[in-house]
Amino acid sequence: MTNNEFVKAYAPATVANVCCGFDVLGFALDYPGDEVWARRSNAPGIRITDIKGIGGLSADPAENVIGVVAQKMLTELGITHGLELQLHKGMPVGSGMGSSAASSAAAAFAVNEVLGKPFTTEELVVYAMEGERKASGSAHADNVAPSLLGGFVLIRDYDPLDVVPLGTPVDLYCTIIYPQIELKTSLARSILKKEIPMKKGIRQWGNLAGLMAGLLKGDYGLIGRSLHDEIFEPERSILIPLFKQTKEAALSAGALGCGISGSGPSIFALSATAEQAEEVKLAMQQTYAESGIEIKTYVSKVPEQGARVIEQPILQPVQA
Amino acid sequence: MTNNEFVKAYAPATVANVCCGFDVLGFALDYPGDEVWARRSNAPGIRITDIKGIGGLSADPAENVIGVVAQKMLTELGITHGLELQLHKGMPVGSGMGSSAASSAAAAFAVNEVLGKPFTTEELVVYAMEGERKASGSAHADNVAPSLLGGFVLIRDYDPLDVVPLGTPVDLYCTIIYPQIELKTSLARSILKKEIPMKKGIRQWGNLAGLMAGLLKGDYGLIGRSLHDEIFEPERSILIPLFKQTKEAALSAGALGCGISGSGPSIFALSATAEQAEEVKLAMQQTYAESGIEIKTYVSKVPEQGARVIEQPILQPVQA
Repeated sequence: MTNNEFVKAYAPATVANVCCGFDVLGFALDYPGDEVWARRSNAPGIRITDIKGIGGLSADPAENVIGVVAQKMLTELGITHGLELQLHKGMPVGSGMGSSAASSAAAAFAVNEVLGKPFTTEELVVYAMEGERKASGSAHADNVAPSLLGGFVLIRDYDPLDVVPLGTPVDLYCTIIYPQIELKTSLARSILKKEIPMKKGIRQWGNLAGLMAGLLKGDYGLIGRSLHDEIFEPERSILIPLFKQTKEAALSAGALGCGISGSGPSIFALSATAEQAEEVKLAMQQTYAESGIEIKTYVSKVPEQGARVIEQPILQPVQA
Repeated sequence: MTNNEFVKAYAPATVANVCCGFDVLGFALDYPGDEVWARRSNAPGIRITDIKGIGGLSADPAENVIGVVAQKMLTELGITHGLELQLHKGMPVGSGMGSSAASSAAAAFAVNEVLGKPFTTEELVVYAMEGERKASGSAHADNVAPSLLGGFVLIRDYDPLDVVPLGTPVDLYCTIIYPQIELKTSLARSILKKEIPMKKGIRQWGNLAGLMAGLLKGDYGLIGRSLHDEIFEPERSILIPLFKQTKEAALSAGALGCGISGSGPSIFALSATAEQAEEVKLAMQQTYAESGIEIKTYVSKVPEQGARVIEQPILQPVQA
């Protein structure tokens, strides 16, 4: 970082909830993701000078999550000089893959580098959460934390915030299919019941405990047996056309488990090998083949690393 | 095992539920526990020829859990010869420390040895569960599994049974205080609400996931932060005199966490060192000092091993 060059940071898409881990668990993908470029400017204030890859996002730093995250960091540190930011979107918004989180995480990471790393990556989570507050009204961490930290991340509690990085089994691959329908997070949340039958609660936390043990011990059979959600998925999946058929197709093709990514509409499946994940992708695609619904698909390793500095842009930005 | 000598097996007390792990988690103690002695007899059928350490238990093999467990194993294997059994109780019944489970586990372990080990220790869980069915009407596994397998054990599911041994952090010590009041498991269960508020459910599984990560990573701070139960403990603890004061005393004395053992009335606390566990014991005892309630206390390492064959009796049987 010399001569006032841009620092370029990349932060990946994420899958929150992960079946039985509703509101407490998320994991990172390697791809897709967003880039944020940042450099110091002598003029005070934050300017967003370019947004690539997607239309319709505000360049007003008070309205775009990357500006909100950057401003929070400057304010916290009492820094008065300005920043110039650019956002290169590499993923669609409203997909349930943590699009606003990837932008927020990349912004936090890039700005931290420009400022000489005053924060550890874990400490950046609270700043990236401000982007989520801006985007959804709720400063949740289950997308920004894995986008920053990589692997699986548990958000044990918010009061105070307790973020537990879990890493990931060496070989774990995620297939995502994004049926391009509009599904508001607020609707996906509003249809959930406010009370859980005790028996279902016990099954849910048995499965989450099993998933935790499976992930930490690298026990793929246990991961597969634990990837269930009998509470939220039955309520939410009715909002996603062909969910049931797609899940059945993924499991028949050998996926360890399958569920709704975040609040949807994307559907994720986990597999133990890259080849399996590709086969699962074909099977999931097939269910939408004659539906008339446009889809995007992604296959990615679950990486150890999340947000990072890149030397060269790595994105081929998608046009949504 | 020659000349038709008794095989002597020991199985320890256990703590089920473990705060946030209601109905799915349990761990073993090293002490107290029960012994079952078993040997082959030429006469058919099962005879219980001695019960030491406690009064009031039936010697009818159809009524005592050790006879029920042994009979289930003989029936499953199609074995027609008989067995002679002796039970040496080393722990009180009705304490919430898995007394019937310890007897059932010791019986399953001893009989398996006499029969030439047709089953693995994990396979013995389903037979020991028959003792629980006899004792409580419910064939639960969250006491018998850790009593057999040692350390912490997750019961992920019952349909089909999925028992996940978790081991234990190298140094973890449990203090138990048993206030000798009568508390029926059926009452302790009947007062529980059948519905859980979603927010409390999410906190509960966040804590259970944190406890799992803490145990598997040996992170004592995380174990401590996760040992909470905001759902069942508030409802159940009203049945245990001085619970709140005892828990506060344990935490003030440095325990990682504290909660109800099983369905009570015993209270357990976990500590990172043996010295701490002894200090916690003194603090917990103090709360009952002038209450007029008789107590028993135990301090035990959480052991890697559960049920085992012993050469010599190790119990100093308590009189309840």
